[in-house]
Amino acid sequence: MSLQAVLARIDQTLPDALDRLFDLLRIKSISTDPAFKGDCAKAAEWLAAELAALGFDAAARATPGHPMVVGHAGDSGRHLLFYGHYDVQPVDPLNLWHRDPFDPAIEDTPKGRVIRGRGSSDDKGQLMTFIEACRAWKAVHGTLPGRLTIFLEGEEESGSPSLIPFMQANAAELTADLALICDTSMVSPGIPSIASQLRGMLKDEFTIHGPRIDLHSGHYGGPGLNPLREMARIVASFHDHETGRVAVEGFYEGVQEVPAELLTQWENCGFDEKEYLGSVGYTVPHGEKGYSTLVQQWARPTLEINGMWGGYQGAGSKTVIPAEAHCKLTCRLVGDMDPDKLRERVRAHVAARLSPDARVTWDNDLEGSPAAVMNTARSEFEAARRALSDEWNREAVFVGMGGSIPIAGFFKEVLGMDAMLVGFANDDDAIHSPNEKYDVKSFHKGIRSWARILAALD
Amino acid sequence: MSLQAVLARIDQTLPDALDRLFDLLRIKSISTDPAFKGDCAKAAEWLAAELAALGFDAAARATPGHPMVVGHAGDSGRHLLFYGHYDVQPVDPLNLWHRDPFDPAIEDTPKGRVIRGRGSSDDKGQLMTFIEACRAWKAVHGTLPGRLTIFLEGEEESGSPSLIPFMQANAAELTADLALICDTSMVSPGIPSIASQLRGMLKDEFTIHGPRIDLHSGHYGGPGLNPLREMARIVASFHDHETGRVAVEGFYEGVQEVPAELLTQWENCGFDEKEYLGSVGYTVPHGEKGYSTLVQQWARPTLEINGMWGGYQGAGSKTVIPAEAHCKLTCRLVGDMDPDKLRERVRAHVAARLSPDARVTWDNDLEGSPAAVMNTARSEFEAARRALSDEWNREAVFVGMGGSIPIAGFFKEVLGMDAMLVGFANDDDAIHSPNEKYDVKSFHKGIRSWARILAALD
Repeated sequence: MSLQAVLARIDQTLPDALDRLFDLLRIKSISTDPAFKGDCAKAAEWLAAELAALGFDAAARATPGHPMVVGHAGDSGRHLLFYGHYDVQPVDPLNLWHRDPFDPAIEDTPKGRVIRGRGSSDDKGQLMTFIEACRAWKAVHGTLPGRLTIFLEGEEESGSPSLIPFMQANAAELTADLALICDTSMVSPGIPSIASQLRGMLKDEFTIHGPRIDLHSGHYGGPGLNPLREMARIVASFHDHETGRVAVEGFYEGVQEVPAELLTQWENCGFDEKEYLGSVGYTVPHGEKGYSTLVQQWARPTLEINGMWGGYQGAGSKTVIPAEAHCKLTCRLVGDMDPDKLRERVRAHVAARLSPDARVTWDNDLEGSPAAVMNTARSEFEAARRALSDEWNREAVFVGMGGSIPIAGFFKEVLGMDAMLVGFANDDDAIHSPNEKYDVKSFHKGIRSWARILAALD
Repeated sequence: MSLQAVLARIDQTLPDALDRLFDLLRIKSISTDPAFKGDCAKAAEWLAAELAALGFDAAARATPGHPMVVGHAGDSGRHLLFYGHYDVQPVDPLNLWHRDPFDPAIEDTPKGRVIRGRGSSDDKGQLMTFIEACRAWKAVHGTLPGRLTIFLEGEEESGSPSLIPFMQANAAELTADLALICDTSMVSPGIPSIASQLRGMLKDEFTIHGPRIDLHSGHYGGPGLNPLREMARIVASFHDHETGRVAVEGFYEGVQEVPAELLTQWENCGFDEKEYLGSVGYTVPHGEKGYSTLVQQWARPTLEINGMWGGYQGAGSKTVIPAEAHCKLTCRLVGDMDPDKLRERVRAHVAARLSPDARVTWDNDLEGSPAAVMNTARSEFEAARRALSDEWNREAVFVGMGGSIPIAGFFKEVLGMDAMLVGFANDDDAIHSPNEKYDVKSFHKGIRSWARILAALD
């Protein structure tokens, strides 16, 4: 009865919830670029104020990086901790956006109404689904459900450097019975999904140095070593083009094949491969031969090049042999792959292939995190699955995730706490890309979903 | 007698000549970047005024691109045309300059006094050696020698788009008995050199397109085609890493081996391979196996990567699979290699290696020019060789050049005019690089050299 009242309240107040989300989306909280440090602090303050207004004992708490937002409410019953992140990805290439990334708007599209703007899906729109569910609950019950802690990070898009120290320093107040994380997508539009496994991540960056200075390609073209050619040759050597496998020695150590039973679940989870590939202009999967698109994305490791540059990039032409070439890469990890071991293997692969007179230097500030597998045997997972199935009129499914959400692994390692990942994003949300969006339906039914889950776990 | 007076005058007035050069070096005439169009016009006006002051009938003449400077003097005797270019290369990476590239200064270095600044060597310092020789000649004789035309271009560093149409439209006034070009280096410091052959050039640029938009490397890492990986694989395929040869089919059509006799001359021309490679940080030559550094640089063709970029290049990390990757390349041509044929071959090489779902587009605005061989049998070449030997107290030599100076070929094709290339730059001048310099000795003795050549050809 009271759940129905909460759901009705959510439906009536949706326009206000959208207005609040827009206020948050207007804050340029790009964590990876120091130029936006002030905007990150502003987003944290905004959220702390929202939580306080709902009766949370909440504050934005300083770290060596961007602030953490922590709020507590209630003191009895099951202790649930909700995690989200208020920071967003950079917006370049800006020229490909059809509106200001930080001037959000509702747009009508052939696929329905969407919220357009950086962070609308990753992760401001998603974290607000939980906060708005709390707001409706409070409006109906006068109190928040059970015992809640809300924990919002501002460094998720930049390697979370402050996260583990902060959790260690505040372990007592952050250790709950279960963590709820809203930063994932649905396997297919309208199919509610709970993540059962996530890939880990290794980030690294290197520079290949050749001549002492930029050279004239007439004078030195021929005898001169060109770092751009070195870079191309070495980056090309990372993969076996025929099989699509990573060619770094020992790369696949700790990788297990997907169990047949899980594979069957995945094959029947409603994933539309053709739509998934076609929506971004692909006709075939380009990963390891012999694995389905879903398995390539959820259960196979990758070595991806995220940026590569050197030499002249301006208008016209410059006949130069540059002194340096640069590369940013990320690996996605599965199973028991060890990020630190892997980093050494990737670096050894590069070192072994350098030409005479070429030199490599590495950026040492980039973090790694192992893959994570969820404890789906816990009763809360089945309870949440039922709640989601009720809301979406469709059986909710346990799925893999290609993305890396290190926080799930950190909660387990540092606080010994299991996590459950429930998200309402869609694969066409263009997160990390120009024109990021979040379906209004995801936002609305996401709020309703959390209300149902809170009721089921209350 | 009068030659001695001219040389003495040059020695006495060197400080004034340097001041004039500095005025020209302060003008930011970067031709490849539209932002500096006004500076190019300013440099042309400055030069036209200098020539007029020497009694030339001179003007900066408009083209669809940057202006040409043309000056005529005298009406009898052998008609000599002098060519130089007043435009300069871009200055990036600016952070590697130890002073403002456009705030020239004399600096004392372990190797002697140098003029530091963009264009000091390529080509403002070199073209001023001829103008200052004319100035001293006029001061002593009251007139300029014989019949002179000075022809200065402002688009040499950006493919000379206006050059051929301008020469065609003004063929009568520009066709002389011989063209003198000062845009080359000495084979080794202190060894006066006349270029007997130049490599040609082909410039091209391409973009590899993959997904419709930038993608999240978590969601699409694995099944997603990455244009940066495509670019690396294709750029790596341009060369056979073992032999150093270009692997583009038909690339070497029209390439001849260097005649044994010329090879012997080159081996004895005083070129210091160890110094040449060591000065920029190389211990070995990196070109085609089986050819000396000098032959790799003067008589073998190349395919060089001048710029390559795509994805995220900012601070920190971004887990993106970019929609595009870009590459700028130049080929150096020798013998009878055909730039247009070669362009098609390079483009076919790329097209043949694209993965499904990858697409390539080409920039069509970049020019090509064939290699050029000088008519060293003409009497002026031997006369100039003697004059240079006298000035430098060292036998002047006929050498090859790794660079491309299309103008020599264009003079022959369009005006049927032979050209003689005499230059005083050194390989460590860092032209096209940060901290470009020109030796004060090159400037001073360069002026004296032209005075001697003008006397010998008068």
